Amino acid sequence: MTDRNDEGGGVAADIGFDALDPALRYKLLVGVVVPRPIAFVTTLGADGQVNAAPFSFFNVFSEEPPLVVLGLQSKPDNSPKDTTANIRRSGEFVVNLVDEDLAEAMNLCAVDFPPEVSELAEAGLTTAPCTDIAVPRIAEAPVSLECRQEMMIAFGPHRDLLIGQVVRLHARAGIIDPVSYRTNMQAYRPVGRLAGSQYSRQSDVFSMVRENLDEWQARQGARPPARSP
Amino acid sequence: MTDRNDEGGGVAADIGFDALDPALRYKLLVGVVVPRPIAFVTTLGADGQVNAAPFSFFNVFSEEPPLVVLGLQSKPDNSPKDTTANIRRSGEFVVNLVDEDLAEAMNLCAVDFPPEVSELAEAGLTTAPCTDIAVPRIAEAPVSLECRQEMMIAFGPHRDLLIGQVVRLHARAGIIDPVSYRTNMQAYRPVGRLAGSQYSRQSDVFSMVRENLDEWQARQGARPPARSP
Repeated sequence: MTDRNDEGGGVAADIGFDALDPALRYKLLVGVVVPRPIAFVTTLGADGQVNAAPFSFFNVFSEEPPLVVLGLQSKPDNSPKDTTANIRRSGEFVVNLVDEDLAEAMNLCAVDFPPEVSELAEAGLTTAPCTDIAVPRIAEAPVSLECRQEMMIAFGPHRDLLIGQVVRLHARAGIIDPVSYRTNMQAYRPVGRLAGSQYSRQSDVFSMVRENLDEWQARQGARPPARSP
Repeated sequence: MTDRNDEGGGVAADIGFDALDPALRYKLLVGVVVPRPIAFVTTLGADGQVNAAPFSFFNVFSEEPPLVVLGLQSKPDNSPKDTTANIRRSGEFVVNLVDEDLAEAMNLCAVDFPPEVSELAEAGLTTAPCTDIAVPRIAEAPVSLECRQEMMIAFGPHRDLLIGQVVRLHARAGIIDPVSYRTNMQAYRPVGRLAGSQYSRQSDVFSMVRENLDEWQARQGARPPARSP
């Protein structure tokens, strides 16, 4: 915190990350990179047990190929968590998306239960079979993405970046228009992840049309485009 | 679209991605993986021109090391866009986060201007110097993350996944508490990306405390944990 800033009379933040405690880096990054989409990930254990855990270090990154990325954290002793171990073994996982109705059960599944406990049963959730992979999806999820591991990249002892390819999408009736393939947000009611214990409904929506260059030029009239000084 | 589902009387979606047109995959993925955080990325051209473009194929993935990932798309002729070319050359970029006040200017910078046009000048934005890298940040941004390229992974002719390390954070006064490092969402007012032309304010917030195993067990009383059938 080195800068003084007169706007608002407060102190602007200017924080180097190299010397910063990783716990504070985490707090800063999850506070400012918001809202994050939530992946409620199911995987299959070697014993047939279905594991379920939520992640907000998650997003879609490409459609050709169709890629999602997950940030997986190890346990304090550096051993992999169930999700990571199951994906490393089987190469398969399901990203179940989270709506307002599923939020409470998703949060319960973040409890660090021992491996023999079924998070889904504890949360009152059930599973439905997938088509292309052996891992089941969450039946109550509004949308589920069947995924196969494309690449797992280890960063230090604690973190893996999992790049997965989406092979199939399931959605509850009413969410995806069968003709236009558009998503109906009112039917979906997705939830975003903020910092700490905060989540956000996506009810406060506004629209901004993205112009192409021709449209923008037409709107400018004869004014020449701005150039750098 | 193969499943019939009686809930709501509609048709549940069950869509394989292999044979699906990439444009429809894109429409589905940006519709269901929501809300996405927005990276308004600045980079520096070889000629000193500052480039600015928004991305919602973006998130934070780790704090140790502190990693962000961006999904970069090539031009229709497979040549890299300015952002990609600049990062490949210099290894540096700034992720500027987007609040409600910055949303309109961010949207204008998504116009596909020719390389000699300054998006920032067109949008009425100005820059401020960074500390650890040569690329400037957007002075009007509520938060900016100075980043260095860690890894660029090419997936086919059209897509690169850029993994970057965060080296420094800047935030406007009032957003980051200087003692607790907590983010004040009311002061920040971040914007999320939905599908099509839709964006969301993060004003409709709810809270769910994540329990640890002891807390959960205490709340359950003597009931044994559920196991898989």
